Amino acid sequence: MKVLITGFDPFGNEHINPSYQAVQLLELEKKEIELVKKELPTVFARSIKVLDRTIKEVKPDIVIATGQAGGRYDISVERVAINLIDAGIPDNDGDQPLDEKIFKDGENAYFSSLPIKAIVKKLREKKIPASVSNSAGTYVCNNLFYAMLYLIDRKYPDIKGGFVHVPYLPEQVLTKRNTPCMSLNDIVTALQIIVATACTTKKDILLIDGKIC
Amino acid sequence: MKVLITGFDPFGNEHINPSYQAVQLLELEKKEIELVKKELPTVFARSIKVLDRTIKEVKPDIVIATGQAGGRYDISVERVAINLIDAGIPDNDGDQPLDEKIFKDGENAYFSSLPIKAIVKKLREKKIPASVSNSAGTYVCNNLFYAMLYLIDRKYPDIKGGFVHVPYLPEQVLTKRNTPCMSLNDIVTALQIIVATACTTKKDILLIDGKIC
Amino acid sequence: MKVLITGFDPFGNEHINPSYQAVQLLELEKKEIELVKKELPTVFARSIKVLDRTIKEVKPDIVIATGQAGGRYDISVERVAINLIDAGIPDNDGDQPLDEKIFKDGENAYFSSLPIKAIVKKLREKKIPASVSNSAGTYVCNNLFYAMLYLIDRKYPDIKGGFVHVPYLPEQVLTKRNTPCMSLNDIVTALQIIVATACTTKKDILLIDGKIC
Amino acid sequence: MKVLITGFDPFGNEHINPSYQAVQLLELEKKEIELVKKELPTVFARSIKVLDRTIKEVKPDIVIATGQAGGRYDISVERVAINLIDAGIPDNDGDQPLDEKIFKDGENAYFSSLPIKAIVKKLREKKIPASVSNSAGTYVCNNLFYAMLYLIDRKYPDIKGGFVHVPYLPEQVLTKRNTPCMSLNDIVTALQIIVATACTTKKDILLIDGKIC
Repeated sequence: MKVLITGFDPFGNEHINPSYQAVQLLELEKKEIELVKKELPTVFARSIKVLDRTIKEVKPDIVIATGQAGGRYDISVERVAINLIDAGIPDNDGDQPLDEKIFKDGENAYFSSLPIKAIVKKLREKKIPASVSNSAGTYVCNNLFYAMLYLIDRKYPDIKGGFVHVPYLPEQVLTKRNTPCMSLNDIVTALQIIVATACTTKKDILLIDGKIC
Repeated sequence: MKVLITGFDPFGNEHINPSYQAVQLLELEKKEIELVKKELPTVFARSIKVLDRTIKEVKPDIVIATGQAGGRYDISVERVAINLIDAGIPDNDGDQPLDEKIFKDGENAYFSSLPIKAIVKKLREKKIPASVSNSAGTYVCNNLFYAMLYLIDRKYPDIKGGFVHVPYLPEQVLTKRNTPCMSLNDIVTALQIIVATACTTKKDILLIDGKIC
Repeated sequence: MKVLITGFDPFGNEHINPSYQAVQLLELEKKEIELVKKELPTVFARSIKVLDRTIKEVKPDIVIATGQAGGRYDISVERVAINLIDAGIPDNDGDQPLDEKIFKDGENAYFSSLPIKAIVKKLREKKIPASVSNSAGTYVCNNLFYAMLYLIDRKYPDIKGGFVHVPYLPEQVLTKRNTPCMSLNDIVTALQIIVATACTTKKDILLIDGKIC
Repeated sequence: MKVLITGFDPFGNEHINPSYQAVQLLELEKKEIELVKKELPTVFARSIKVLDRTIKEVKPDIVIATGQAGGRYDISVERVAINLIDAGIPDNDGDQPLDEKIFKDGENAYFSSLPIKAIVKKLREKKIPASVSNSAGTYVCNNLFYAMLYLIDRKYPDIKGGFVHVPYLPEQVLTKRNTPCMSLNDIVTALQIIVATACTTKKDILLIDGKIC
């Protein structure tokens, strides 16, 4: 089984991006899973092109994209990507689209095809805070997540795909007051669990999360 | 112009629901807008039936549904409803569907047809904290919001519709530590502004919000 | 009975200060309480001088000082003032003392002589979020609170005194994400309750607050 | 140089206490520092007795007490202990004193004699979120911190002492929504830095913290 896992480069005022930092350090115990890592630019248009090209080359069974969600408390396993770009800040190429569709002919939204609740359950069993998230935002992360599921829908029907947001690292919050973070070590462990669970779970479980909105 | 505005009854551990409390107190200055108010039960199936029946009877030009979003800091003008029920707690009839579609033949998501950014801008001009929200959750609020847009799509193509989440009232957070709230007076004023802006805005504006995720 | 109530002028990046705004609007129902209002400068040295002079002139029975605590969720009835200035930002005269004592011959700390728990209980009964706070910070608010209790200890033994922090107003958080606020109306009502409770409570009550730290 | 470092046992609804867990794992690189570890009961009266007896036996140069501060985001180096017990929940012996003095003949407050700002600076240099805290609460942590400084003042004038609060561990927040935590590894590293900095710093530095209250 082959897994493509991606992370982003730093954006905004940050000098690091925990998503690709963790991907870089990721090593799997199970040798039957082949892992391909790719850093994506935090750029609306180019990140999609690089993803599409990489999927074509790598031919993965599963694609897991990861990104930084500054201000979140836990590993956020994203449930749904929406057909919308609404950039609060410019991307790394200086583009800042407002209220635009990602693909004009795409669905309004696509749902992750990863076993998101099985992943959350397994992460918590391993003592890593995690939850299902119902919004990947409207910036480059949602853009890439949506494009992945659109491409899967159109061109790669046998691939499973999803997106995971990770919190800031401790070093990113030193001068930000009351901002949560997660250690790099825990994020790397989380990615190991996510990859393993995605590869071995046939059918997602029902897990009551307690969130209302 | 006729506006149907709804709120929900109390649910969970709460004895009040600020959404219908505010709707009840709502009065408009502009006499050319006819306002119809309706309290909906916090029940997945019944709230949709009551909404559909009320739309049929009232024949509004605009439908604005409101609900309580405990823990949020501001008036959240919802952007998108997703085709999913995932109930963290039972509804007021004791039903707790997990990972179910709302309408099997519906789109994955529908976008609000209210001028959401013009509304946010106007609220802020009137000194009321507000923002666009990209998730109405997966409980009865999203369920009703999705059903409204599904019904509009299928049966009432000339109606505009959307959803607004309001914070807890001060009296609801007295024993909850560090939980934000908004005064009933400000919520009522917000609803006045929302109705007026929805009725008078032809085309939504572009507003940079600064949120990433 | 005569009550001196003070608020501060705006400081930092704020254009308003809810503390004196609320004091200005404060009116009492009980006509047997004489209320004297005073705006203090957000300046370490001068605020103390103005307070001392005003106490001498007014000869109040009770002094209640109020200040803005941006980021707090509720009315914070302060319990203790410490003999320390440690200014995170300059005061309105440009002074920024670091790790200095307020009065070299003062106690390490003084406790409020207001009935702080009776006040919190009464505020909650009137549906206003409130709690006892164990730190007034190390900026101008704590400086004034400490000086008030020092002056009472040395010069005005018959006066009761205390300090109350109030949250931001809604208009102050429009562009601050996820920051709590309280309506001016609720803050004014809170001050009415605080003054009345301070004047009528002979002995403070025991109230379990549930906070650990 | 000899350092006594303490942590508490679990209390409230928690099954673990990160403070003594971290103390247990603590090892120092510098062999010239002799480290003595002690677990204290989360009990108002007994924790003081155990501390006093242990100081008498161990004869440390420095005492560093640590405790859990659930809900805090970073390593909180406490500045001041106040002469007050006000227990939001019972201690582990079932005692819940309200508004009582710790020592009737003690000062209103004592200040830490550790180099608290040098410690915060060093922690941040090592990428561990940290700040000076102006309140250790009114529960067993403040009680022990106050008693330590009282005992030093009365009986052990040559000892330096202070208190450090640590956040929840990740495993403690799995079912608490939006609650910050810190990895055990980072807490252990923080304690190493704190002990080393306490032993080597002659005079505390001036560090602007940016906090107002």
